[in-house]
Parts: sequence; structure tokens; C-alpha cells
Amino acid sequence: MQTVARRHLLGLDGVSDEDILLLLDSAGSMKEVSARDVKKVPTLRGKTIINLFLEDSTRTRLSFEIAAKRLSADSINLSSRGSSLSKGETLADTARNLAAMAPDAIVIRHASPGAARLLADIIDCPIINAGDGAHEHPTQALLDLLTIREHKHEIDGLNVVIVGDILHSRVARSNIFGLLTLGAKVRVCGPPTLLPAEFAELGCELHYDLASAVKGADVVMMLRIQRERQGHNYFPTLDEYAHFFCLTEEILAEAASDVIILHPGPMNRGIEVASEVADGPYSVMMNQVANGVAMRMAVLYQLIVPGAGGIRGSEVTDRQVEPVVASGGRA
Amino acid sequence: MQTVARRHLLGLDGVSDEDILLLLDSAGSMKEVSARDVKKVPTLRGKTIINLFLEDSTRTRLSFEIAAKRLSADSINLSSRGSSLSKGETLADTARNLAAMAPDAIVIRHASPGAARLLADIIDCPIINAGDGAHEHPTQALLDLLTIREHKHEIDGLNVVIVGDILHSRVARSNIFGLLTLGAKVRVCGPPTLLPAEFAELGCELHYDLASAVKGADVVMMLRIQRERQGHNYFPTLDEYAHFFCLTEEILAEAASDVIILHPGPMNRGIEVASEVADGPYSVMMNQVANGVAMRMAVLYQLIVPGAGGIRGSEVTDRQVEPVVASGGRA
Amino acid sequence: MQTVARRHLLGLDGVSDEDILLLLDSAGSMKEVSARDVKKVPTLRGKTIINLFLEDSTRTRLSFEIAAKRLSADSINLSSRGSSLSKGETLADTARNLAAMAPDAIVIRHASPGAARLLADIIDCPIINAGDGAHEHPTQALLDLLTIREHKHEIDGLNVVIVGDILHSRVARSNIFGLLTLGAKVRVCGPPTLLPAEFAELGCELHYDLASAVKGADVVMMLRIQRERQGHNYFPTLDEYAHFFCLTEEILAEAASDVIILHPGPMNRGIEVASEVADGPYSVMMNQVANGVAMRMAVLYQLIVPGAGGIRGSEVTDRQVEPVVASGGRA
Repeated sequence: MQTVARRHLLGLDGVSDEDILLLLDSAGSMKEVSARDVKKVPTLRGKTIINLFLEDSTRTRLSFEIAAKRLSADSINLSSRGSSLSKGETLADTARNLAAMAPDAIVIRHASPGAARLLADIIDCPIINAGDGAHEHPTQALLDLLTIREHKHEIDGLNVVIVGDILHSRVARSNIFGLLTLGAKVRVCGPPTLLPAEFAELGCELHYDLASAVKGADVVMMLRIQRERQGHNYFPTLDEYAHFFCLTEEILAEAASDVIILHPGPMNRGIEVASEVADGPYSVMMNQVANGVAMRMAVLYQLIVPGAGGIRGSEVTDRQVEPVVASGGRA
Repeated sequence: MQTVARRHLLGLDGVSDEDILLLLDSAGSMKEVSARDVKKVPTLRGKTIINLFLEDSTRTRLSFEIAAKRLSADSINLSSRGSSLSKGETLADTARNLAAMAPDAIVIRHASPGAARLLADIIDCPIINAGDGAHEHPTQALLDLLTIREHKHEIDGLNVVIVGDILHSRVARSNIFGLLTLGAKVRVCGPPTLLPAEFAELGCELHYDLASAVKGADVVMMLRIQRERQGHNYFPTLDEYAHFFCLTEEILAEAASDVIILHPGPMNRGIEVASEVADGPYSVMMNQVANGVAMRMAVLYQLIVPGAGGIRGSEVTDRQVEPVVASGGRA
Repeated sequence: MQTVARRHLLGLDGVSDEDILLLLDSAGSMKEVSARDVKKVPTLRGKTIINLFLEDSTRTRLSFEIAAKRLSADSINLSSRGSSLSKGETLADTARNLAAMAPDAIVIRHASPGAARLLADIIDCPIINAGDGAHEHPTQALLDLLTIREHKHEIDGLNVVIVGDILHSRVARSNIFGLLTLGAKVRVCGPPTLLPAEFAELGCELHYDLASAVKGADVVMMLRIQRERQGHNYFPTLDEYAHFFCLTEEILAEAASDVIILHPGPMNRGIEVASEVADGPYSVMMNQVANGVAMRMAVLYQLIVPGAGGIRGSEVTDRQVEPVVASGGRA
């Protein structure tokens, strides 16, 4: 029996360990679908999913689109290019218009923090945050957690290091919330300009030196560096950044012998990660991508199917749904 | 029994009241599909619909795409971005190429008046005009008519006011044809630069003052103002336009007490419509959007399925189809 | 019984006559699907096909998308617009990421020769080259061969002339390989700047005069001229080019009386082909487009379905697959 407390996935801040584990378990069973010869189940047949990507994206949009199709949903893409979304209409009005077309879920990526919550507050349809500015990117964190759990079996007690532009990273934020909720110890590491002291208040350990951060780590998660930050007070040049924060085999020797390396992609080889590390045996980046499809299938399923067991937490609107006794249990 | 006289929907000019009512009735039954848990019927399975959008659009393209998918058709998008449609090929050659791929319908939006008719004249496939320059936008008018009928039960005898840039509006033109055919009295209102005297010849009453136009109106349809017209002889500034033609609660007090307000979107709040009016109880804008999906489902169905009962009129090519006795009557 | 020797279609260079004929036969049966009322077979249900179009395209992308949908596959488009594919990631890393999402085939168009082979070398998924720079465009050549065979019954012994920018044309290259393999005699014709002597080494006859090239030809294939080459040493102006190489009725009188004219599109009327020739009875351009869908259906089917009978040749990676006894023979 699962009680459903809400219908959106806006972030991992405030989502309970129980709900995160439910999604990880659900994704585990979804992985099996992509391994079949016929990679399709009828679960979401006749459901309409709108992918509202108002910020450029490749892999996240693709991952959601494949996830929807493998569940037999109708997936419809909207981007800011070639659309009238810049014609002076407010995001709220756009959202109301989309909602009037009776979608079963809206997946939104937007440059502004809080865009997903804005939608959830005004329309009556499950909203999935696919990245809102520097705020959260919960499905990325969930697929990272799934990947870590597959390799380490248990997240509780792990030493996880997140390296790079912590300040601007929605991936870092969502992972910090999820990892801490599941009991991991989280170190964050980057140049002081990209790692404000406030992150200590979230429960992280702060490091400004890569070698010390990586010492004894079970998991190292490297973040993408935005080339456009170069020369804008954050760091002088990419070379300078890479000199101090590129993950090389030498530095990796400080980590646990069975360390795994994650990167959300797209990766700048030689800047965030040395090529030999990226292609080395401890890299699980391709597992992350494969898990991304499964994780999005699980999220779509859990939020769209009544009684599938939803997500509880505080980073969502307070729409209370009836407790449900699902005869067949979870999916 | 329905006789089918043609296979295109190029405009509402010349389409009979009988055909318009057939489409409105058909849309009524399509609405039920979008209210289901499984929003999909197999009606157009194995049919290929090409959405040829050579002018930017969000909601119309989206509405047609959702409509096609809810009927189980394969919907394929072509836009002028990322395509070779600007590589010097004529529209006629593009059309012939598309036709050679055996689509069951082509939905076209184009900046040039007559683009849809050009396609209908040279290729053998149902053509649906999704907006051609300042000429016509028949599915928008049909969904407006559907929305009006749902709220007023009968269109015959209603006082309908259309306000804004009448001169450049394909929405206004298609609505004028449809409304007059169904027996409504149509007033058009806007600044003289955007409302030429020729509209009186279509059978409309001309108004240059908003309050007088709205007096006793049952329906007020506000048009979108194109910001790019500002300062180009049509009107000095948006503020000036809004001062005279923005629909406020004060002006609306002149209308019938059960007036309804339509807007094709995207709406410029505070320019065409005051926010309190847009969000007020007489606004039916979200019904318009929901009806848009149903209306496009009805149009696709009526034009693609032989014997479903087609559309008669003069704004179409003269392809005569055999009269049909449909056993089950209309869809 | 068909033995399968490889799983990619990177080009026609080195592909055997047997494999080409298998694909032509397979496309023949696929054509029947597009002529049905319900244009859809369940053959590739639950298969995921990624269309990775990193260079603008309309008809090729559309043709592959329609082909996939008529086989019930899930077709997903990725273009360089609105994507993060320009975010500094290498093509190899992009490919690995796509492969991790478990597609059943990747169709790639890319500006760089060898891009399709690069993908085939590093990932474990059938790769179909939809045009890689000036290298090859095998499905275009296959649909041309299919069109020629339908009109001439036998390709062996035909006189085929290819006219235009031979130097930069992947269409010309793929056709030369395919035509020579099937026994045609191939003449190539163009201005010396666009027709290097090296083409004689491939087995072609070189012509710099259109009338002499066309003399007695059974098939004339006109290539698209890139307007952007104008004034860049290749030819002074489009008018100058057209004066010498535009196919007019007068020049066509030199060809065999039952000559057919092909053009891969989009066509510049009056530059490559005079309008009266393009619209004349010997033009088979629309057959080419219709055959394009059937040919892509055949290619997707042959490469994705195990035991359907694959493609042999040298322009592919050497992945050896078990010989297969297909009970029902070829598709």
C-alpha cells in the first residue's frame, strides 16, 4: 500500500527518503523494458505529455521523449525556437493554454529558478521540473542516485564529492538534497568564487582543494563548467580552472580504490575530467545516461498513473490526494 | 445522410451553414475523447499528417499535433527552421515533394495569403489552412464558433463585436464569414487605420469607438495586436492603442449582462484586454483552447475519412466527391 | 536463405550487387504499404530510431521519419538547433550518449565526411548514413537505383549521365558506386572546376560538354548546384553555369527517346533543369520521392530486424553476424 501525497516533481528539497527510494525501485523495473527486444509497454497509452523546453537541451529532452514513447504515451515537444512563446505572453498564460489542451503531464525546462513551481501553482496537471535555472534538476539527481546505488548497493554512509561550479549548478543542488536525505556524507569542492560558504548550512563539507576533497571518496561527481563564465570574475581561464580542478588519474589515486566517477554531460574533456579518467573503468557516465531513460519512465509513471504511488515532500504544491490501496502494489 | 462536396478546408468564405454545423457537431463528439482517461481513438491509425508550418506558431501547431495523436494518426512536423525549405525551391515544388510521400492531409501555415489554395490546386491530398497571411484561419474561427455556441446555444441573431487590427487579421476574416453565415450580426471595431471601409461590404457594422461597439453585445472577440505595427502609421504607440481599445471592466458594463469574451491568444495583457477582464467570469479563452483540439480532430476526421461527411463551399477547389450514405450517420 | 554480414549502411562503396538488389527488392514490397488505406505495419514496433541531423535537411529527415512511423517504430529527431550538441562535446561522446539510450538504429546526417563511420566504429547500434559531407548518401543512391530499375527493368548496360557539381556531391559518389556495381555505364559531366580527373579512376567517362554527355543516354541525373559556390572559383555566376549545363528540351533531344530524368531535389528551376523538362513526361522526380520512403523502410527493416538479411560490403565495420536461415525468406 502506498499513500500518494502530491503530484509534481519540482525538486528533491524536502522529498522524503521513502519517496526517493520508491522512485529508485520503480526505475529499476523500468530498466528491464529498455533491455527488451520490443522496448514498449502500454502503461501510458492515450496519455499526452508536453515537453516544454524553453532552454536548449539535448539529452534531457531526448531522454524524456524516449521514456514517454517506451511507455506508449504521446510526447509533444515545444521549444522556444520556432514558437510564439516569445510573443509577449506571460509564462503563466502559456501554462494555462497548455493545460487547456488536457495534457497528463508537463515537463518543463526553463532558465528561471521557480518556473516549474509557478506552473504547479496555477495549473491542474502534474509538473516535472527538467531544470529551472540554478535551482533544481531532480530527475538528474535521481538518475545519479540510481547509478550510485547500483554500484554501491547502499547510499547511506557513502562519501560523495561534488566538484566544480557548485554555485550555479542545479545538478549539484538536487544531488545534495537527495544524497543527504539518503544518508550520504557530501563534500563540495570548487574555487571559492563558485562555492559560497552557504553550502555548509545545507550540511555539506566545503573543500577548495581537489586532492583533499577526493581523499577516501566513494563517489566523485564532476560538474560541467560553463565556458561562458570564463573571464567573468569566477575564474580567469579554462586552463587555469583545469589546472586546479580537472580530475586526473593522479588525483583519483587519493580516492577509495573502488571509486566511481559521474558527470551529467556534456563533458569538456581535459577541463573537468582528463580523458583517461573519463574512459577509465571507474567512469559510470554511460550508466547514468541509460538510467536517465529508466528514471524518467519511473517519474512519468508515478506521477501520471493514479494509485501508482506518488512523491511526498515540501518542494511541491500541497495538493492532497486520497490514499490508495493498489491491488497489485507498486509498478 | 451527408453528401461530401470537397476535401479541403481553405477558409470559411463560401462554406455553407450546413457544413459549418456538421463540423461543430463533430467537434462536440470529439471533445469527449480528450475527457477520457485514455485520450485516444484508433480512427486515423495508419494515416500520415504533415504539419507544414512555414511561419512561427505554438498553439496552433501544438493543437493540430495533439488532435492528430488523439486520433492515432502519425503527425510529422516541418518548419522553416532547420529545413531546406529556404534552399530556393518553390512552394509548389515543396508541395509536390510532400505529396509524393503519400500523406493523408497537409496542414499548412504560411505568411502569404493563398498559400493553402496553391497547394490544393496542385496536389491531390486534403489541405487544411492553419493561417495564410492576412487571408483566413478557418479552424480558429470554427473553434470560436464552437465556443460561442456552447455558451449561447444559438449563434443566429447574436450581436458579436470583433475588436482590434481588423485589417491584418485572418482570425477576424474567417470569423466574419462564419458568423454571418450562421446568422449573427457582426460589428467590427478598431482605429480607422486598421479598419478600412471595405469591411462594410462584407456585411459588418463598422465602429471606431469601443464603448459604442460593445453596447448590448453578446460576444466580444478581442484580436491580438502585433507589437511590430507600433509606430508604422497604424497607431503611434501601444499605450495610445490601449487607451482607446483595451477592453476594461468599465467598457464591458455596456455589453449584455451575460457577455462572453474571446481572444485567440497569445494575449498582451493590459493592451488588448485588462487583466481583470481576462481573468474574469465572462472570459472563455481557456474553453477556446480546449475546443481547438476538438475542432482540429473534427476537421482532420471529416477531411480524411471517406464518407465521414465533408465540407462544402466556394473557398475550396472543385473536386467533386460521390455522395455518401454513411450507415451510422455523422461521426 | 540470406547471410548477414554487417549491420550498417555507411555508403555504397564496396557493397555487393547482391546486397543492393536485396534492398531494392525489399523496397519494392515496402512500397505496397504506403499505397494502403492504413499505411502502417507493426514490423518495428517498440524499436527506437534516432534521427541525428546535424546538418539542415527537409526531405531526407522527413522521408526517414515517415518510413519509421509506417513501420511502427518510435522515431526521435535531434538537430543541431535548439540542442546542446554545440556545447563543446565531441561527436564521439554524443554518439556514446545516444547509444546508452538503447536505440535500435541511428540515422546520421553530418557536414563531415566519415561522421557515420566514426559512429559505427565506436558504438554498438546500426548506423545509417543520411549524408556525410561530400562523401556518400547511400539511401539517396538506392532510391535512385530503385527508380531507374522500375522504369528500365534492368540497370546492367544502361547509359547513365550524372551532371553538375560532381566534386562536392555525395549523391554522385554513392550513385557512381551503385550504378557501376550493377553494371551501368556512367558518364559524369560538369565544368572542369567541379569535375576532377580522378573520377575517371572510379570507372566513369568524363564529359565537359553537356550535349556530348547526354548523347544516347538512357538516364540523366541532374545534381543540385549550391548557390553559395557562385563566384568562388568554381563558376562565375549561376547564369553562366545554367548557360552551359542547364538541361533543356533541345539538349535532351540528343538522349535516347525513352530517357528518364532524375534530380535529388530541391531543384533550382532554370539553373539545373529547364521548367519544361522538370515538368515533362520523362521526369521521374516524384517517383524518386515516393521511392525514398519505401527505400528507407527497407533499409531500416534490413538493418534492425535480426535475420531479415543484411548488407555486405567493405564500407562498413567488420561486425560479423551469424548466418541466418530465414524461414520466410526475404521480407
